[in-house]
Amino acid sequence: MGFRLVEVEPGRATFAAEPAEFHYNPIGVVHGGLAATLIDSATGCAVQSTLEPGLAYTTLEVKVNFARAITRDTGRVVCEGTVIHRGRRIATAEARLVAEASGKLHAHGTATCLLMAANGRAA
Amino acid sequence: MGFRLVEVEPGRATFAAEPAEFHYNPIGVVHGGLAATLIDSATGCAVQSTLEPGLAYTTLEVKVNFARAITRDTGRVVCEGTVIHRGRRIATAEARLVAEASGKLHAHGTATCLLMAANGRAA
Amino acid sequence: MGFRLVEVEPGRATFAAEPAEFHYNPIGVVHGGLAATLIDSATGCAVQSTLEPGLAYTTLEVKVNFARAITRDTGRVVCEGTVIHRGRRIATAEARLVAEASGKLHAHGTATCLLMAANGRAA
Amino acid sequence: MGFRLVEVEPGRATFAAEPAEFHYNPIGVVHGGLAATLIDSATGCAVQSTLEPGLAYTTLEVKVNFARAITRDTGRVVCEGTVIHRGRRIATAEARLVAEASGKLHAHGTATCLLMAANGRAA
Repeated sequence: MGFRLVEVEPGRATFAAEPAEFHYNPIGVVHGGLAATLIDSATGCAVQSTLEPGLAYTTLEVKVNFARAITRDTGRVVCEGTVIHRGRRIATAEARLVAEASGKLHAHGTATCLLMAANGRAA
Repeated sequence: MGFRLVEVEPGRATFAAEPAEFHYNPIGVVHGGLAATLIDSATGCAVQSTLEPGLAYTTLEVKVNFARAITRDTGRVVCEGTVIHRGRRIATAEARLVAEASGKLHAHGTATCLLMAANGRAA
Repeated sequence: MGFRLVEVEPGRATFAAEPAEFHYNPIGVVHGGLAATLIDSATGCAVQSTLEPGLAYTTLEVKVNFARAITRDTGRVVCEGTVIHRGRRIATAEARLVAEASGKLHAHGTATCLLMAANGRAA
Repeated sequence: MGFRLVEVEPGRATFAAEPAEFHYNPIGVVHGGLAATLIDSATGCAVQSTLEPGLAYTTLEVKVNFARAITRDTGRVVCEGTVIHRGRRIATAEARLVAEASGKLHAHGTATCLLMAANGRAA
């Protein structure tokens, strides 16, 4: 998909992508799947950054709101994920996807993650 | 992303994809963005199939539940979207993503779409 | 809230309620909380109906779409929940809330539940 | 349901409730419907606080994550809603439900609202 992690600290992770021709859908804007992928990545990575050694996570569900269409003119977008709740078995996080040039919000979302031992056992 | 529309009828649309190396994320399974993209496409296209000429839609939000990881061994996945509610200004749809070989459910989701005149005016 | 379970079988549960004055919000329709409560109950109970003895569940998240306002004129509403996915640790379900008299859909939604041993241990 | 608006300013609204016996469900904790109702109210009211005269809103969907059970011992809970995105036709908001005594997060959620003329026409 052409995106990458640009920053991570405990409870927070930021991804960025440059909208390109190959992200377009037939109606002439970037496919919603790009925002969904970035929000899934940023929330998951933010959760992962809070895990002690020996723990792993899997994303149970992700929800994305599309606020503004993304086109090539939007330029580079950054998506910052932040942990909202970190329990023993469940963590949740939110993410906001903003155009770097304009500062405008293009999408936002949340995710619910299940925590488990890295060997696959329940946490 | 390497997916395509395989069938559409009023209120229903099916997409399919073949999981490939380039869909993988660092933890060795297909990125959740693939399921999200297919569910976004299948729900949106199902809604579009109900629109009279002169109407367009935009997806306001999509929510995806991940039930099973997708790998290359999963083989081809098909994602069928179905309209749940078709109002004058709002339509909702759901989609289920199933592995063709096993018949197992790998993901499911819903979307909310805003309907509008194709010229951009409110419906 | 004035609602009750009217039917349950494995993987399915139905609740019903009679919209009343005390469900109203200041803008003159039944509060969205009634539909949310019924959908939370119907999805949770549908999941519970699939659990072997010794297992319990907790709802992690519920999402509700409001399709039509509910008023006292709507009359009795029934909300049927159905399990979509039943894994070892996670189950998901959907629910549809319909007016008994008109058969019209007023709301629908989904929920994600975590399964665990009834003693509180992870499943 | 026994809750009330305690504060509102542009883009923000706070509700509070005292968990009581009549909120309980059969498994001995407060029904998830209470958190859903508070989050629906706080997000909707936050959106409403941004509307110019002549505009109205309707909530299209609300999604709630349950982080901790609420019991009578939790004491008073406060739920603050904040607008995330305010477009011309669509607004989104989030809300967090916290126990006043402990400061702990018990639930959080988001909502999507459709804006329209108070006479029912599209905005």
